[in-house]
Amino acid sequence: MERVPILKIGDILLVSIQVDMSDQTAVQLQEDLAERIVATGSHGVIIDITALDIVDSFVGRMLSAIASISKVLDAETVVVGMRPAVAITLVELGLSLNGIRTALNVERGMELIAAARADEWHEADGDEDAETTATS
Amino acid sequence: MERVPILKIGDILLVSIQVDMSDQTAVQLQEDLAERIVATGSHGVIIDITALDIVDSFVGRMLSAIASISKVLDAETVVVGMRPAVAITLVELGLSLNGIRTALNVERGMELIAAARADEWHEADGDEDAETTATS
Repeated sequence: MERVPILKIGDILLVSIQVDMSDQTAVQLQEDLAERIVATGSHGVIIDITALDIVDSFVGRMLSAIASISKVLDAETVVVGMRPAVAITLVELGLSLNGIRTALNVERGMELIAAARADEWHEADGDEDAETTATS
Repeated sequence: MERVPILKIGDILLVSIQVDMSDQTAVQLQEDLAERIVATGSHGVIIDITALDIVDSFVGRMLSAIASISKVLDAETVVVGMRPAVAITLVELGLSLNGIRTALNVERGMELIAAARADEWHEADGDEDAETTATS
């Protein structure tokens, strides 16, 4: 069975989807990701779909499911590398990718996750000056 | 035709090989990588082979070719995520992966590339204290 590899880069897990997702591969990926998030304590998941020519409703649902699972495990999910044609098709199909953040590339995705984490810290602290005090 | 995506993370290009490489895919990947190294000025290429069950002589030659091309373009190549069974098979087949550095995972690969770059800087400077003076 095909298994999509999960790469750990710092605080982030990176998944590059290159193969056609079967039901089984999708379920396996969700399980593997959930396990890795817990095992590594990662706070972000980046899913690269550069290689996908088509994002149909099945893949869309899978991405949403991954985002929901990650959220429960306190990790942000960002989908990166979407091709222009894929974006157009998504809109034409009326698929909205619920609860999924997107970014242009992996680097932007990492920035987005870092920013989201920083926001959460501020909210948790209830301290607007956290950034300035941290650097002093 | 399948095309292996190349992800840019900071100063490094990351390639995760998940599909069976045909002649055409391999040539395409080499061309794409060479172009991206030049376009981005990257100094490191990390090739993740976590998904590969087998590294035969064809894939071995492809990895060596990528390493040679990258070297000419002033980029280090590190192969990461090799499975234990793959390593055993490589040795049994007598394949040596000429000129290829390996690391356990992407993070170690990044460290290896950073260390290799630092060494080069020292050599170019001819200054053993470059590290301490840079921080002062």
